[in-house]
Amino acid sequence: MKKESPLDIKALAQGAKTASRVLALAPSSRKDRALQRIAEALEQRVPEIVAQNRQDMAAGREKGLSEALLDRLLLAEERVKGMADGVRELASFPDPIGEIVGGRRTREGLELEQRRVPLGVVAVIYEARPNVTVDAAALCVKTGNSIILRGGGDAFLSNQVLSEIVAEAVYAAELPKECIGFVASKDRAVLGDLLGLTESVDLVIPRGGEKLKQFLVEKAKVPVIYAAGGNCHVYVDAGADLDQAVKIAVNAKVDRPGVCNSAETLLVHSSVAQDFLPLVVDELRANGVKLYVDEETKAVLRVEQVEQVESAQEVHYATEFLALEMAVGVVGSLEEAVQHITRYGTGHSEAIVTQDLEASRTFVDAVDAAAVYVNASTRFTDGAVYGLGAEIGISTQKLHARGPMGVRELTSTKYVVKGRGHVR
Amino acid sequence: MKKESPLDIKALAQGAKTASRVLALAPSSRKDRALQRIAEALEQRVPEIVAQNRQDMAAGREKGLSEALLDRLLLAEERVKGMADGVRELASFPDPIGEIVGGRRTREGLELEQRRVPLGVVAVIYEARPNVTVDAAALCVKTGNSIILRGGGDAFLSNQVLSEIVAEAVYAAELPKECIGFVASKDRAVLGDLLGLTESVDLVIPRGGEKLKQFLVEKAKVPVIYAAGGNCHVYVDAGADLDQAVKIAVNAKVDRPGVCNSAETLLVHSSVAQDFLPLVVDELRANGVKLYVDEETKAVLRVEQVEQVESAQEVHYATEFLALEMAVGVVGSLEEAVQHITRYGTGHSEAIVTQDLEASRTFVDAVDAAAVYVNASTRFTDGAVYGLGAEIGISTQKLHARGPMGVRELTSTKYVVKGRGHVR
Repeated sequence: MKKESPLDIKALAQGAKTASRVLALAPSSRKDRALQRIAEALEQRVPEIVAQNRQDMAAGREKGLSEALLDRLLLAEERVKGMADGVRELASFPDPIGEIVGGRRTREGLELEQRRVPLGVVAVIYEARPNVTVDAAALCVKTGNSIILRGGGDAFLSNQVLSEIVAEAVYAAELPKECIGFVASKDRAVLGDLLGLTESVDLVIPRGGEKLKQFLVEKAKVPVIYAAGGNCHVYVDAGADLDQAVKIAVNAKVDRPGVCNSAETLLVHSSVAQDFLPLVVDELRANGVKLYVDEETKAVLRVEQVEQVESAQEVHYATEFLALEMAVGVVGSLEEAVQHITRYGTGHSEAIVTQDLEASRTFVDAVDAAAVYVNASTRFTDGAVYGLGAEIGISTQKLHARGPMGVRELTSTKYVVKGRGHVR
Repeated sequence: MKKESPLDIKALAQGAKTASRVLALAPSSRKDRALQRIAEALEQRVPEIVAQNRQDMAAGREKGLSEALLDRLLLAEERVKGMADGVRELASFPDPIGEIVGGRRTREGLELEQRRVPLGVVAVIYEARPNVTVDAAALCVKTGNSIILRGGGDAFLSNQVLSEIVAEAVYAAELPKECIGFVASKDRAVLGDLLGLTESVDLVIPRGGEKLKQFLVEKAKVPVIYAAGGNCHVYVDAGADLDQAVKIAVNAKVDRPGVCNSAETLLVHSSVAQDFLPLVVDELRANGVKLYVDEETKAVLRVEQVEQVESAQEVHYATEFLALEMAVGVVGSLEEAVQHITRYGTGHSEAIVTQDLEASRTFVDAVDAAAVYVNASTRFTDGAVYGLGAEIGISTQKLHARGPMGVRELTSTKYVVKGRGHVR
């Protein structure tokens, strides 16, 4: 079933580019009709989707994928319906394209306006979750962008059937089906080629860990927004409410360990280490979390707790576990916590637990990340929570988009300037 | 005088990064005081600046630089004072850093705000004009970013003295002088190294032509915003007011031929070619413009005009002359004009001259460029004209910034989220 026939990625991208000029000028009603068609088709073709997904799941089990990864891969009927609902919700939102984001009459009397326009062709590179195929394609239809989908090999059949469904629905709504490009190849070389297509690809969004990011840093000639990994920290300050701190640390780790906004390291101020660490270690262990702790932590744990933890190596502080594992360290000061985060953090989500106003201000100012939390779990970094609607990823870089990326982040602007024979 | 001693670009960038964290948290008053100091120092040290510039000018003349380039290189007393005035004006603007650009109370009761923050370290790569040294450095001080300046070899001594003056003034205002990094080397390999410093450089802005752009596309691992060349077009539509069209075409070419927003190609609808082309060719020739025209153009020129023009080759349509040279072509339709611009344009500034409303709408929608003009010269693409204040360049890409880049485009944002023990 797996198609590994030679794929002309350049032609696919060029087709997406040509189609993007049609999509860019399509009226909102037609784009929303395409979204409605996608939702209907998903619901009608549940059995087919589930059948393809079952093959991916079986292969994944055979390959020994972790339970967390298998859970991300799974497409049950309910999840497909959830995807369809998400697409319908997106159809109901206002069209970002054509919005006038600013303007003025210039001193010279020119009428200046800045309009929101599509980017053109957006390539999304993603891993296990096949729902990204639909979510990302729907966001691109809404924002008038062609999309090139390059999913992970483990979800290949699921992604393929979903992208077919989406492309057919788009075509049924009288938009070019080349707007939806599916990279029907697991070949890394094809991905490399895609990253060099500066003539036709306007943006690549890699959704994956630091390894994928490094591959792109080396290879990409096209513009990239890294929706990269989150090595997120919870720092429990000297001024923390320790009950809050336990709840936040546990939630940030165990609520959904496989996602990027979950915490990977717990930092604790030395002045509360003795009171806090035995409490939180009990809770984390009760939730099945494997712990890598430093010597200072061991020194304040009860004897039977010490037996339940491992010694932290530097690598643990640098790892995004994406699993029920956590590194723990004691710091002598807020400044030391900030230094640790500056060194090991990936600029995603960082939290301080404190009732001390000055400490919270210092942490918020000094930590350089997309989202900084005071007395809340890092798990809240999410487009829906932030009120952006659906998201195509969470940017950990500073250009163009930082934090959850919604429809607006999938657009650019164009200045339109009208004169009456104006010259300089 | 030319220092070509080995330069540790990595250490320079790391110093700029460390300094950027201090600058990021500096109060507005201190940053504005630094700008005032820069302005004062420029005025006080005019003789020194002019002396260094004279050496660059002499070397440039010897090397045979064109008059246009020599004009860009020149720093007379008046120009230095103009730079100082620009820096003072910037000091008087509100601080973009710390601005709350959005926020809400989320459904869960979290207090969410999106704050404007600096990017960190911005590297600017530029060519002949030494005033960029001061303009770009001042914009970076204002926006709390460290800057790394890498100017063209022809302006080396001018750039060196200017960056010294700026760094000393910044230090005198109690900000780290490492905020102002000057690449005291003309070595292309050093530039290549700079483009790989992903740990310390947050953005590179190349201000130069397509060759510089291609070098960066190949080499850059750090994020880049291309303030690249402008192969700009003026299209004279069937519905044009021909008097307006002559004025606009001539202005777009001759007002300041050495800058990126000047026009390089004139496209004329066949239905007005006979009336329009003889008129505009007279005017352009009277202004000393060398013309490369197609056969259709020749066919409608007067005999003595034909002798004054050259035949256009494809390369002429693809060239940013940055000089008193222009390619001319006749097109059969608006669509053909758009196709020509899509093929040869660089996404900078494009103009249509027409009184036909529908034609103007079609052109504005179909042309994919940072700025699209109706009945106005392409020369207006400029931060000051657009009301952005000073600009650090004109972006020809779609991510982060498109068109003139002012202070806002030198910033990122950070989400700050406050809870009361919130967990998911």
